[in-house]
Amino acid sequence: MKAYPQLEARFKRLTVLGDVDSMLHWDMSAMMPLGAAAGRAEQMAAVKVLCHQLLTAPEIPDLIAAAEAEQGLGSWQSANLAEMRRQSARARAVDEELTEALARAVSNCEMRWRQAKRDADFEFVRPGLQSVLDLTRQEAQAIAEALDTSPYDALIDGFDAGLRESEIDRLFAPLVENLPKLLGRILERQKSAPLPLDGPFPVAAQREIGLKLMALLGFDFAHGRLDQSLHPFTGGAFGDVRLTTRYDEGNFAKSLMGVLHETGHALYEQGLPEDWGYQPVGRAHSMMLHESQSLLIEMQACRSKEFLTFAAPMIAQSFGRSGAAWSPDNLIRHYTRVQPGLIRVDADEVTYPAHVLLRYRLEKALIAGDLPLRDLPHAWNRGMEELLGVIPGNDAEGCLQDIHWFDGAWGYFPSYTLGAMAAAQFFQAAGESEPGILPGIAKGDFGPLVAWLRRHVHGQGSRLTPSELIHQATGKPLDAAVYLAHLERRYLA
Amino acid sequence: MKAYPQLEARFKRLTVLGDVDSMLHWDMSAMMPLGAAAGRAEQMAAVKVLCHQLLTAPEIPDLIAAAEAEQGLGSWQSANLAEMRRQSARARAVDEELTEALARAVSNCEMRWRQAKRDADFEFVRPGLQSVLDLTRQEAQAIAEALDTSPYDALIDGFDAGLRESEIDRLFAPLVENLPKLLGRILERQKSAPLPLDGPFPVAAQREIGLKLMALLGFDFAHGRLDQSLHPFTGGAFGDVRLTTRYDEGNFAKSLMGVLHETGHALYEQGLPEDWGYQPVGRAHSMMLHESQSLLIEMQACRSKEFLTFAAPMIAQSFGRSGAAWSPDNLIRHYTRVQPGLIRVDADEVTYPAHVLLRYRLEKALIAGDLPLRDLPHAWNRGMEELLGVIPGNDAEGCLQDIHWFDGAWGYFPSYTLGAMAAAQFFQAAGESEPGILPGIAKGDFGPLVAWLRRHVHGQGSRLTPSELIHQATGKPLDAAVYLAHLERRYLA
Repeated sequence: MKAYPQLEARFKRLTVLGDVDSMLHWDMSAMMPLGAAAGRAEQMAAVKVLCHQLLTAPEIPDLIAAAEAEQGLGSWQSANLAEMRRQSARARAVDEELTEALARAVSNCEMRWRQAKRDADFEFVRPGLQSVLDLTRQEAQAIAEALDTSPYDALIDGFDAGLRESEIDRLFAPLVENLPKLLGRILERQKSAPLPLDGPFPVAAQREIGLKLMALLGFDFAHGRLDQSLHPFTGGAFGDVRLTTRYDEGNFAKSLMGVLHETGHALYEQGLPEDWGYQPVGRAHSMMLHESQSLLIEMQACRSKEFLTFAAPMIAQSFGRSGAAWSPDNLIRHYTRVQPGLIRVDADEVTYPAHVLLRYRLEKALIAGDLPLRDLPHAWNRGMEELLGVIPGNDAEGCLQDIHWFDGAWGYFPSYTLGAMAAAQFFQAAGESEPGILPGIAKGDFGPLVAWLRRHVHGQGSRLTPSELIHQATGKPLDAAVYLAHLERRYLA
Repeated sequence: MKAYPQLEARFKRLTVLGDVDSMLHWDMSAMMPLGAAAGRAEQMAAVKVLCHQLLTAPEIPDLIAAAEAEQGLGSWQSANLAEMRRQSARARAVDEELTEALARAVSNCEMRWRQAKRDADFEFVRPGLQSVLDLTRQEAQAIAEALDTSPYDALIDGFDAGLRESEIDRLFAPLVENLPKLLGRILERQKSAPLPLDGPFPVAAQREIGLKLMALLGFDFAHGRLDQSLHPFTGGAFGDVRLTTRYDEGNFAKSLMGVLHETGHALYEQGLPEDWGYQPVGRAHSMMLHESQSLLIEMQACRSKEFLTFAAPMIAQSFGRSGAAWSPDNLIRHYTRVQPGLIRVDADEVTYPAHVLLRYRLEKALIAGDLPLRDLPHAWNRGMEELLGVIPGNDAEGCLQDIHWFDGAWGYFPSYTLGAMAAAQFFQAAGESEPGILPGIAKGDFGPLVAWLRRHVHGQGSRLTPSELIHQATGKPLDAAVYLAHLERRYLA
């Protein structure tokens, strides 16, 4: 048997086990009783160690070298092989002991975080987070040596292949420069508040309108489901996309837009190239691209006045409401309201980058060892004051608000804002090449938009690097200009 | 490092992966969207193959032999080692290819069965079931050669270590002889029907009273949960017990007793010896004992007039009902109503053994190759007519009703009736040694009963063979006498 098909067989098993890990993680977040945390940590560690063993099997480098010398590989197969090489190089840098220790530390820390966040008690989770951070720094160091990068770059590379801190700084610079002024002008304009949307909004009704809009967007319920979790996310497996939201009976607007956001992620997963579903090249390997898809659906499409004008009567009806507060105009004002706040996931698209910037700066300092964990709450609060002029009243609305560091995702935050920039760029390119997209959205028809995304983004899997894909789909490299122009147009036109 | 601790480390990983498989199975039954079946089959096959690889690693037999020669093992460790030897001998008999093929066939067949049952269409699932049967026969043959038993005995042994067909025949003989006469006398006595309990009973209310009674029984919700599935079962992982039920808005009684039945299984799982949770000896390896625990809770404890007298007002209140139909006496008449019917899981304890006998006879013939699968529906219907005088109107209420053959459980059915016999014997022994048990149940206090079970059954794990455990806990070997006496007393006294 040739080397390439042998690798495909091995990586299929690996990809399937990755799905198993992901299902266990979904269950942990959406279903698992609290007392089962220790057992789940064992299960996830066992699966991760087996994945690591498969990926670092001593034959793999020779097989990859042999496959690279084989004739007749198509472009997908070559890209698949390149992705195999990348994954195996990263994995070989980290030994099994560290893999297992990190898996356990993350599972335990994530479960403690739930309680710490509920009780606004950073100290309760600090030792757990310290373990995760220490082990992550070890991992980053080991991968950095193998890839010849800095430790922080090694972490970023795990979420967005090839991306580096210097490139992020370059891409963020126009935001750092322009957003504060833009924010000032927008706040000046939005002095009067929209009419309030008074609750309560029963969870069942919120869930129902969420499901209705998911269907409208083209979510395939035969291959996925919607549930609840403390921190909304999209996970699951190939052909089985699990998204979650959380409900607040006093405010339907957040949860509903959260569902649409996650549906953007889910459409990406459901649109990956079917023939390559069990190979590395068939998966979505870039978090920046993933976030671009959720933000494209949420921010570009669903917060547009075209869509909200269409959706307002459906939403009003689902809660049995009517009147001026439920008019499209007032709903649009709610969904484009800009207000510096404490919580990233509730932030509008104008202030969101400041939340990311704070986390980007802090995680770099934590990974570099320049910021002791005990000083994190204070540093967080000072950063919020400096960047947005607001100060958390406790750590639940401060450094405990996000799951990411606690579940081991370091170097991930920048992809939120890079994703927002990419979303704007994709949406503009899509609208220019398919003039039917925006009129479609105005009628609740997402077909033309999703078709464009399927062709240019989802269906590409990991065949290209994120920057290659953006360039190919939009005709230019990623930058902040389209995003800033979008903000100007939406909030100041 | 000595051999025994090396084995413990290997079997811990194996046990944890078994939990992963079990979680995937729970999800498949209770949560997974239908279109995800193919992917789930891949996942479960991958995990099963890895388990098989771990269990058949070439070093294992030598490690076991070395550990058996090591000094200073305690009785739990020795029992653990014996169980390791048993599991590894069974696994080594079956090659990896067959393990994987069977895992895939079972996952696919189980998902097709859901649709076949819904549509009462045996032909839709027949090819899938044929694959499962063919592969199971191969597996049985391979294990039979290793254990020097018949193929059917090899299958039984997988559910109840050491149990053989000849022993089952001997234990079933008094039932075959006495139950038909007993049934005739009971039906004579129960000529008048109880007052009807009129629905509808909303699912939410049914769920709530189910949860309330689970709590009363001592189910630990920090380590488990209750959901819905087409076929009720108890699964999950160590420290994370997932039970399921199904609801019928026209009839709360079945679902509620179903929840109590599964809670019996769940209490067993939650009472396993904590220190041995990740070793073979710490798990419940006998299906007969497992069923004895569910039937002890359901049939012996919760259908007793003592418990139903206590529970009737709670149940009536939870549905907002009152009046003669909701009196304890009428509820007792419902819950001790004997009526030959088509559906095993709805059967009373007098006619239940006939359902098991039918399946026992049919699966022996199918495994022996004496009954072609296409003749199964006919053979089933003739058997029902002969044993219980009723004939299914379609295969959904005939040979499609149970999940077991479709999900690969062959040689499992006898344990239901052996479990019923063991339940009666345990309950009698418990009541004799702890006189507080029945008065406790009459006040809704299951503490004394569960404490006895923890000590004599749950906490024993797999330290003893099922027959040793029954003998030790009840002072005599398993037989049908106590069970028959229980039926006489409850239905004819």
